[in-house]
Amino acid sequence: MNKIEKLHILQVNEQDKSETDDTVVREFSLTIILNNHELATLLCSPTNLEYLAIGFLSSEGLLKSKDEIAKITVEESKGIVQVGTRGGKEAASEPLPMPIIGSGGGRGLHRYGADANTSYAKINSQTRISAHEVFTLVKEFIHRSEVFKATGGVHSAALCNTQDILVFNEDIGRHNAIDKVFGQCILEDIPPDDRIIITSGRVSSEILLKVARRNIPILISKSAPTNLGVRLADDLGITLIGFVRGRKMNLYANSWRVDLAEHG
Amino acid sequence: MNKIEKLHILQVNEQDKSETDDTVVREFSLTIILNNHELATLLCSPTNLEYLAIGFLSSEGLLKSKDEIAKITVEESKGIVQVGTRGGKEAASEPLPMPIIGSGGGRGLHRYGADANTSYAKINSQTRISAHEVFTLVKEFIHRSEVFKATGGVHSAALCNTQDILVFNEDIGRHNAIDKVFGQCILEDIPPDDRIIITSGRVSSEILLKVARRNIPILISKSAPTNLGVRLADDLGITLIGFVRGRKMNLYANSWRVDLAEHG
Repeated sequence: MNKIEKLHILQVNEQDKSETDDTVVREFSLTIILNNHELATLLCSPTNLEYLAIGFLSSEGLLKSKDEIAKITVEESKGIVQVGTRGGKEAASEPLPMPIIGSGGGRGLHRYGADANTSYAKINSQTRISAHEVFTLVKEFIHRSEVFKATGGVHSAALCNTQDILVFNEDIGRHNAIDKVFGQCILEDIPPDDRIIITSGRVSSEILLKVARRNIPILISKSAPTNLGVRLADDLGITLIGFVRGRKMNLYANSWRVDLAEHG
Repeated sequence: MNKIEKLHILQVNEQDKSETDDTVVREFSLTIILNNHELATLLCSPTNLEYLAIGFLSSEGLLKSKDEIAKITVEESKGIVQVGTRGGKEAASEPLPMPIIGSGGGRGLHRYGADANTSYAKINSQTRISAHEVFTLVKEFIHRSEVFKATGGVHSAALCNTQDILVFNEDIGRHNAIDKVFGQCILEDIPPDDRIIITSGRVSSEILLKVARRNIPILISKSAPTNLGVRLADDLGITLIGFVRGRKMNLYANSWRVDLAEHG
C-alpha cells in the first residue's frame, strides 16, 4: 500500500486561491493480535507491517527472538497482523496492563517510571564514533527520508554502524519507525547490539528505553531530548547526541564516545 | 513545576567541543485515577495537570460537563490526578477497552476506525474566517509558543474566535496540548462550540475526532494532515487548514468557510 496519497487542495494567500495537487501521508489502523488475543491498535504508515508488529511485541517485552515466532499473518485489507508464538497459551491468558500513553507518539503497555532503569542493564560498550562520522551518517539518513521531504509528516529511524546505515524505516509515528527497525532486525537476523540508532524524532524516556532494551550504546537524534531522556541516557551509559543540524550537534550524555578526529 | 530544565551540555562541530548551558523540556508521568480506578498514565509537560486530566477524560467520553465532577485532587509529587464523578461507581467497574496507540502522540482507549464518523454529528456551523484573520491568529499563536522557541520540543494548542486567542496551552504531546485546552474549557465554563482550534502538530484522525467531539467547525494547523485527517474533516463538515507558513496556507476540506477578503 502506498505511503502517501495525492489530493486536490486549495493553496491560499491573502489575494488568491488556486487549486493544486498536494501529497499527504497515509494513516493506517493496524490491530496486533498475539495468540488470538487483541493486544493493541497502532495508527501507523501502511508499510512493513510485520516489522512493526514484531518490533512492537519485542519493545513490550512480549517477544525476544525469532525462534519464539510460530506464525505471522498480515491481513492488510482488514488492518490486522496475527502473531502466534510457541507456547503462547499463557501469554494470551494474562490480563493487559494499564496503558501508558506517551507524549508525542508515546505508547506502550508497561510502566516506564522513576524506577524503570533498575530493570535495564547499564551499557558498557566501548564503541566510539567521530564527529565527522555522525555528520556523514545523519546526512545520508536525511537523504533517505524522502517521504518526509514530500509531505512534511513522517518520521524515520535507522540502525547503523559508524560507517553505514544497515536498516532504515519510516512511519508517521516516531515510535513505530524505531519498532520497525528492531522488528526487521529480529526477522532478518541482524543483531542490533552495539550498533547506533538514528531517529528523526524527539528523544523522550520511552524512546531511550526502547533503545536501551537492545543494548544500543549511541543514540542520535535530529531533534531535542526531554529531561528524562537525558537522565536515563546518563544513568544507562548511552551516548545521547541531539540537534544534529549541518555540522553542529549537542552531546547530552556520555560524550566520551564521540571523538573530534577520525578514529580507527 | 518548571516546564523546562537547564543542563550543561557539549556543543560540537568537527573541530571543537565547548561546554555550554542548554534547555530541555521536562517530561512528567501523570497517572489519571477516575473513581479510584487507575485509567492511564500520560507522559506530559508538568503544567495545568487538572486541565489535562479533565480534557483527557472528556476526550475519552468518560466525562461530559463540569457538573459531573465531584472532586479533583492533584498530587504533583506522586504524579497523580484523582477525579471523582457523581454516580461514578459504574464507571469504575467497567473493564478497560483495548488501547489505541496513535501515530505521533496518538493515544486513547477507544477504537477510532473506518466507522468512527458514524458516531459523530456533521458540523453545520456557518462560522467563517478570512485568510487575513487566519494569518493574524497563527502569528499570535506562534508568538505565544515561547517554550517551543526555547527548546524545539513542545506543542501548543489554542481555542480562538476569529479575532482572539481565548485559551492557550502547551505540552510535549500534541494530544495533551489539545486536551488541556478542552479541560480548561470545562473547568472555566468556556463553551468550545463553534470556535476555532489551532494546533502546532500534525492533524491525524485522532486529532480530528477530538475536535469534532466539541463541535469545532474550523481546525488550523501549522503542520500537515494525514489522509484520514483530511477524509474525516471532509465527512464531518470541518474546515481543515494546514501548513500555515507566513502568508500562505493550504485548505484541505470545507474551504467555503475561508474568505479572501475581510468579512463582517
